[in-house]
Amino acid sequence: MFTSVVVVVLIPAGYSNGFRGQVASAGLLDLLDEGVPGVGTYEDFNTIDWVREKSKDRDRHREINRQKKQSDLALLLSLIDAFSGWLLMLLIGLLSGALAGGIDIAAHWLTDLKEGFCMKGFWFTHEHCCWKSNETTFQRRNKCPQWKSWAELMVGVPEGASAYVVNYLMYVSWALIFSYLAVILVRAFAPYACGSGIPEIKTILSGFIIRGYLGKWTLLIKTITLVLAVSSGLSLGKEGPLVHVACCCGNILCHLFTKYRKNEAKRREVLSAASAVGVSVAFGAPIGGVLFSLEEVSYYFPLKTLWRSFFAALVAAFTLRSINPFGNSRLVLFYVEFHTPWHFLELFPFVLLGIFGGLWGALFIRANIAWCRRRKTTRLGHYPVLEVVVVALATAVLAFPNEYTRMSSSELISELFNDCSLLDSSKLCDYISPGKGGERAANFSMTTNGLADRAAGPGVYTALWQLVLALVFKMFITVVTFGMKVPSGLFIPSMAVGAIAGRLLGIGMEQLAYYHHEWPMFKGWCSLGAKCITPGLYAMLGAAACLGGVTRMTVSLVVIMFELTGGLEYIVPLMAATMTSKWVADALGREGIYEAHIRLNGYPFLEPKEEFEQKTLAMDVMRPRRNDPPLSVLTQDGMTVEEVEGMISDTSYSGFPVVVSHQSQRLVGFVLRRDLVISIDNARCCQDGIVGASRVLFTEHTPSHPYQGGPPPLSLRPILDLSPLAITDHTPMEITVDIFRKLGLRQCLVTQNGCVFKNMVHLASKRLDPLLPSELP
Amino acid sequence: MFTSVVVVVLIPAGYSNGFRGQVASAGLLDLLDEGVPGVGTYEDFNTIDWVREKSKDRDRHREINRQKKQSDLALLLSLIDAFSGWLLMLLIGLLSGALAGGIDIAAHWLTDLKEGFCMKGFWFTHEHCCWKSNETTFQRRNKCPQWKSWAELMVGVPEGASAYVVNYLMYVSWALIFSYLAVILVRAFAPYACGSGIPEIKTILSGFIIRGYLGKWTLLIKTITLVLAVSSGLSLGKEGPLVHVACCCGNILCHLFTKYRKNEAKRREVLSAASAVGVSVAFGAPIGGVLFSLEEVSYYFPLKTLWRSFFAALVAAFTLRSINPFGNSRLVLFYVEFHTPWHFLELFPFVLLGIFGGLWGALFIRANIAWCRRRKTTRLGHYPVLEVVVVALATAVLAFPNEYTRMSSSELISELFNDCSLLDSSKLCDYISPGKGGERAANFSMTTNGLADRAAGPGVYTALWQLVLALVFKMFITVVTFGMKVPSGLFIPSMAVGAIAGRLLGIGMEQLAYYHHEWPMFKGWCSLGAKCITPGLYAMLGAAACLGGVTRMTVSLVVIMFELTGGLEYIVPLMAATMTSKWVADALGREGIYEAHIRLNGYPFLEPKEEFEQKTLAMDVMRPRRNDPPLSVLTQDGMTVEEVEGMISDTSYSGFPVVVSHQSQRLVGFVLRRDLVISIDNARCCQDGIVGASRVLFTEHTPSHPYQGGPPPLSLRPILDLSPLAITDHTPMEITVDIFRKLGLRQCLVTQNGCVFKNMVHLASKRLDPLLPSELP
Repeated sequence: MFTSVVVVVLIPAGYSNGFRGQVASAGLLDLLDEGVPGVGTYEDFNTIDWVREKSKDRDRHREINRQKKQSDLALLLSLIDAFSGWLLMLLIGLLSGALAGGIDIAAHWLTDLKEGFCMKGFWFTHEHCCWKSNETTFQRRNKCPQWKSWAELMVGVPEGASAYVVNYLMYVSWALIFSYLAVILVRAFAPYACGSGIPEIKTILSGFIIRGYLGKWTLLIKTITLVLAVSSGLSLGKEGPLVHVACCCGNILCHLFTKYRKNEAKRREVLSAASAVGVSVAFGAPIGGVLFSLEEVSYYFPLKTLWRSFFAALVAAFTLRSINPFGNSRLVLFYVEFHTPWHFLELFPFVLLGIFGGLWGALFIRANIAWCRRRKTTRLGHYPVLEVVVVALATAVLAFPNEYTRMSSSELISELFNDCSLLDSSKLCDYISPGKGGERAANFSMTTNGLADRAAGPGVYTALWQLVLALVFKMFITVVTFGMKVPSGLFIPSMAVGAIAGRLLGIGMEQLAYYHHEWPMFKGWCSLGAKCITPGLYAMLGAAACLGGVTRMTVSLVVIMFELTGGLEYIVPLMAATMTSKWVADALGREGIYEAHIRLNGYPFLEPKEEFEQKTLAMDVMRPRRNDPPLSVLTQDGMTVEEVEGMISDTSYSGFPVVVSHQSQRLVGFVLRRDLVISIDNARCCQDGIVGASRVLFTEHTPSHPYQGGPPPLSLRPILDLSPLAITDHTPMEITVDIFRKLGLRQCLVTQNGCVFKNMVHLASKRLDPLLPSELP
Repeated sequence: MFTSVVVVVLIPAGYSNGFRGQVASAGLLDLLDEGVPGVGTYEDFNTIDWVREKSKDRDRHREINRQKKQSDLALLLSLIDAFSGWLLMLLIGLLSGALAGGIDIAAHWLTDLKEGFCMKGFWFTHEHCCWKSNETTFQRRNKCPQWKSWAELMVGVPEGASAYVVNYLMYVSWALIFSYLAVILVRAFAPYACGSGIPEIKTILSGFIIRGYLGKWTLLIKTITLVLAVSSGLSLGKEGPLVHVACCCGNILCHLFTKYRKNEAKRREVLSAASAVGVSVAFGAPIGGVLFSLEEVSYYFPLKTLWRSFFAALVAAFTLRSINPFGNSRLVLFYVEFHTPWHFLELFPFVLLGIFGGLWGALFIRANIAWCRRRKTTRLGHYPVLEVVVVALATAVLAFPNEYTRMSSSELISELFNDCSLLDSSKLCDYISPGKGGERAANFSMTTNGLADRAAGPGVYTALWQLVLALVFKMFITVVTFGMKVPSGLFIPSMAVGAIAGRLLGIGMEQLAYYHHEWPMFKGWCSLGAKCITPGLYAMLGAAACLGGVTRMTVSLVVIMFELTGGLEYIVPLMAATMTSKWVADALGREGIYEAHIRLNGYPFLEPKEEFEQKTLAMDVMRPRRNDPPLSVLTQDGMTVEEVEGMISDTSYSGFPVVVSHQSQRLVGFVLRRDLVISIDNARCCQDGIVGASRVLFTEHTPSHPYQGGPPPLSLRPILDLSPLAITDHTPMEITVDIFRKLGLRQCLVTQNGCVFKNMVHLASKRLDPLLPSELP
């Protein structure tokens, strides 16, 4: 009675390399020690085998534990090894915090350079230049004699038409120079430095290998070009790229420790922590950063990593604070403090903001993906430098006339979030003092009851239409900006769009409440002379909603915002806005921007959040299908080196099942193509007597019968994976996908035993991912 | 050529029921619809099969999706179904928040009843009684004529020896009454209501079934007895039991929704969220609660659950706040506000506190486990009521004379956390005013520079030795209290121990700095007349360290403490203390208190954090061993009903592999004992012609040859799991354990194919857990 084993290899997206723990723990390490270089490593653009990597690490650990009982030195080394993870986290925190501080300072300086120049020294920013100036009062802080606008320097007049033209021209020129430099540097030195990097980091964390993506050149160029890109005034933020920068730091610092250098799975744990560090320094929100890493980017996030991420995120946040780039000794990017409680009825406009955020998020993703696809498929993609320069030119030309687009996006958001206090000189705070009976108060320090709701003055009305224009402008320009060949984050532009919309709605509500406080909906909580609407809160909620719509972050977003405001007071409005936003956006399209870009770029990624909906069995998707050629298998002792080489060159599969014999397709193990090629090449060059006719043996013992005069056999048992995971052909695909996801497999064998003979077997080294949507019945 | 399959079933701790997705998705549901009751359900004290439950849910979901395209009503129903999870979370939040508020208020009232009585009405607590009293100033807040101590009521004198004796006696009597009532109620109505419940909830969340543990009786009795136990003055807290209460709410509310009632896996998602709710209401820390659930109790925590947990935790926190049981409209249990920054050199005492916390944690766990084991094994365990009453008596008698043990633990912690401000009348704040040159300041409002470091006055010295006594007392009494048959949490007693130790160290440091501010270590940051040491901060760090040492919480602990203090300022000291504590405690014993109690009680639990260290293969641990009887297997078409029943009664295994035939042990599938018993019983009673000689068929088709005059066969194909997960015998155990953990398997088959014949096969339905430490080579 014969048994046949039908074997199919499904290589899913985001994974690789089978269930090879046994290989690693038994033979592979010895083999490595014996020096067949390359066995057990991965090629570029391949996926790692989590199980094998974790097995390797456990073996390392076991070896250290064994040795530490033998000598004091080994004990010390084991202690150092145990703490090396923490040391690494400390270093990543310090380096990332320092880099983030440097980027902040440099970007600030370059942004100010677009406006003017400090006579005390060119290296001063506007704020630092006027820091100790005597003329500096709150109102006139930014006007000090040391700081000269370009018009003052070049034509000698600070105001007037000619000054405006000069300033305009200088603003546009600097923007062009910065963006040109940025794109040229990216093109020349580190093509991977463009974009936000988060889609790629997600893919890498899920197990894919992109060599150089987190390398030192990328780090260097991304740091420099990020500063340039931000300063050029393009509609992009530095928050996403900071995650990339932190991950580069993490990856580079991994090389200091053998434990992390040699193990791809361990390194990914470090990278998960590094992405938490990135968000931590971007927003000054360590807890939010950890949750961002957990929710958004990480794939494998054990509790140990949670704790270490938190440590690294804190170190980074404190490093950043001691550098103090914002000059306010606050940890957070946008520090806001609201004092007015919100009313239950306000949930209605909050939900409206959520709907707006969701709509904008879904539409933005569609528009941006359509534009990026156009860039990929048409001739547009052939001129990346020109594209950046043209977009920068358009941005600068359109942005300068409008005060709210001229300032950097983070300044804009800060101003929009801000609640008007007595001393604010911003146009947005130009309210008419109620004390003067409708007369406009020229100076707000005269307002007696400055915190009450007031009628909007002409400044506010000017600001309103400027904000509307800014909103339309930002919405369009961001779509074409994200995805260009410069470092570009999405957090800030999305937040800016939402903050503008939120502030507009907030001011509208405020005026409504002021003029119509007798309306039933305002009655009882919004009397005349009381402060009942906080437009800044609306701006914050709008920003959160838009960011949520674009990225589909949920808990991490709320926590980041919670860390910004520092009070539990506003968590309910925040949750209302972000939840609505996510639901609305999800209804219009399941994918967030990062998933959409992963799919656009064709990275292999098995989305952990997505449920597999179709109802199929492994037998329905596995290869071979009925008319396919038979499965390519190796036999454990029946093939010669030449035959194996022939099979390798005839097929492109990345691994082969090893069976007992062609007649009885019983599974012995699994061998990877890469390991096979390396081992045979190595044996051919360095092992005596191995020729084409040598038998290839995967058996435990060399056969007892003599060689019969033939050449000596080649034993490849050490590279054989004796414990491939096998599922039956009746296993539902949803469970199969779950197995792939949870165990981090690279492939899985499908066996059909206990049934009819079936020699029609075939190895399909196809990725599971493209298989899922299209090829299932 | 024959192939044999050696099959072994490993049933690990915390799991059950094989890889039966296929059964569920194909045959089982139909069978259920056909009405064989019980198939697909679980017995008490069994573990669930996550894969099967998730498959069931996916099938449900698929069915809803199919139907919603057909009618508008179905669409509406599908929407309701989609939002039922959120609605459930809302309800859990509201109910748990309300219960927590009720418990707080009731416990407060009963605790005050031990001291005296409000003449305005017996239902007033001391604080509420004196709330609007005119005499109430800050100093004399707690002395108002409406509030009478028992001595005043009974002997008519408020002070003096007789009054002391009367108060003492009443205090002890009430403690005895409360504790007696608590233990009697627990014994009579809900034995599961005792303890903290967290070990059991961890086990339940990992997939175990304990019927009634989260039922309505447990909820009711636990709520009542928790109030009594806390009020009795026993050294226990209400925080752990609140998690149990919240989980009971979650479990009971699950019955409102079919989706959650019928699916054990889905219900566990809800329970994960409920445990977050529990911590959220216990400390007023929603984010900390979610992280506690994630880090400490949950087993399967998908992102969707994260988001829902957060929502539920927030709802509960807000419900609690609107009930406002602490009367300070603060969300948090211990609100602290420190203003003094800490100095880098202070990290040294902080680390000392961490070491203390770690030592105390490890020693406490050992002592408590030893005591609990003694209770289990000796006659002590036969008198639970007496034990509780004796401990309560000892506690009350010893606690009354010392002011710091007489007050409730949470009040004590509050006082210890508190930084001395100008108006504090506590003994701990009895410092000597520096303005008076060493003279004792009777009233602190006279101190001109109240916030500077000062010399300790006699009050502080009295407090010091009282605190030392309290520390020793708490340390001993907590060991015998935790594990008694009353609801008892560990958070508060651990925190109290730590807070006392911390405050002692803090005062010590403060006095050292005051008297020796010229010492090099204080120079430069701690000059005379400046405030440089905050003893309250030390108390907080000590509390965190001790709690960390006992529970081994890390991130969640830091986040809870962060939410209490509300500032990132003190996160570095907190991390230093908790990290040291965890490291020290881990060095002395790997298990936290909950894991230790799980092991003590013998619950099957596969610790997800633990690494499996031994290096063995599945073939080394699998049964049968060489001399064992052969594996009990069913054949797919060769056995009669009688033979199968004989095998069921002869063995106690919970499942049997089905093979092609006894000669060729090729695997067809796996069938569970419970399903088999139910199906055969059902067939015997209700299906025509099924007798003992009927053949049992697991094949797809009834065989083509006729019955040859025999009785009609019984087809059990529907209950056959066609996709059991099989691993090879060469798979390392560490990977096997990982597979069990990550996939949530109940059993796994080990196949040995492609090898020699081996008919010596045996089914070992042994739990993996007890196998691990002892039986491995």
